[in-house]
Amino acid sequence: MAGRRIESLERLIGELKKLPGIGVRSAERLAFHLLRATSEEAQSLADAIMSLKNKVRHCSRCYNLTEDALCQICADPTREHARIWVVEQPKDLMALEATGLVRGVYHVLMGHIAPLEGVGAGDLTIEQLAERVKSGSIEEVVLATNPTIEGDGTALYLETILEPLGVKTTRLARGLAVGSPLEYATTAMLEAAIRGRA
Amino acid sequence: MAGRRIESLERLIGELKKLPGIGVRSAERLAFHLLRATSEEAQSLADAIMSLKNKVRHCSRCYNLTEDALCQICADPTREHARIWVVEQPKDLMALEATGLVRGVYHVLMGHIAPLEGVGAGDLTIEQLAERVKSGSIEEVVLATNPTIEGDGTALYLETILEPLGVKTTRLARGLAVGSPLEYATTAMLEAAIRGRA
Repeated sequence: MAGRRIESLERLIGELKKLPGIGVRSAERLAFHLLRATSEEAQSLADAIMSLKNKVRHCSRCYNLTEDALCQICADPTREHARIWVVEQPKDLMALEATGLVRGVYHVLMGHIAPLEGVGAGDLTIEQLAERVKSGSIEEVVLATNPTIEGDGTALYLETILEPLGVKTTRLARGLAVGSPLEYATTAMLEAAIRGRA
Repeated sequence: MAGRRIESLERLIGELKKLPGIGVRSAERLAFHLLRATSEEAQSLADAIMSLKNKVRHCSRCYNLTEDALCQICADPTREHARIWVVEQPKDLMALEATGLVRGVYHVLMGHIAPLEGVGAGDLTIEQLAERVKSGSIEEVVLATNPTIEGDGTALYLETILEPLGVKTTRLARGLAVGSPLEYATTAMLEAAIRGRA
């Protein structure tokens, strides 16, 4: 279904298609929606996109997203600043925060070690994490990387870095996905559940 | 998963959630994608949205989308201007154009008659269609409304309007969906196929 030389429509469909999970059909549907929307609604979306890029930066301490120098979590004196939860990405941090179970602070690695993709330890915020551990009275570092090959590899590397510093490191438990029946569990999930049984 | 007081991130997620087919998960994924994208990429998307709203308007003759007074199809002297294909929406026009089989011109109704939604004949571009038929040497009006209750109702109404004007009206054929096996055809499709057999 061609935009048929309506240049600005084709251009928007082209821009929308670049977004993850948006195919040509979705891009067309979104573009037609925006065409029917009021100018104020479209302006509001365009402004929100630019505002995000202009205002959001990384916390100077933990690399979480923030609009200030320190993120709200690092700036909060009631958090357990002696317990650092290490995650790969800001969205992992948000998933943990949404549980309401984490009282500590975070450190966002900004990725995971992936040699095949050319991402080495130096590309992450590992040195900054080591500095935080060295400089403060940190009691525990929870390695909350993803339960994937890269996440596990990154956690193993972090253990070799943090062990000499004398800080206790822990990992998130893994096993069966709560609420998902055993018959749908993958071999890897079952293996983790069996090895970790207690 | 909360945006946790990163106002501009929450605002963009809120704006994206308003779009059709975009739930909270998709909105978050898109927002994080834009956060990682370069400022130029984000600017490009924001500009495309505003450009669409500022530049695209309806063709003064057929109500197709255009950036000029007349759309490319109406402005094309090689099209069959005596044959008008009547569709509900610009996207229906584009679907027909994509076949490459239509040599005539179009008329976009900008909807269909739907009394329950408060859309009457006066809300569509039916009067403008009648004017085109009256003023020109139109040989055929193809009623290419959707094969739905509203589309059929609109086409029936158009026939009552156009018949007194002495113009020939035709309808798109309906029947089995080509490429889709008989066993998956709905009763309505089978009924149309049986009645229209030849």
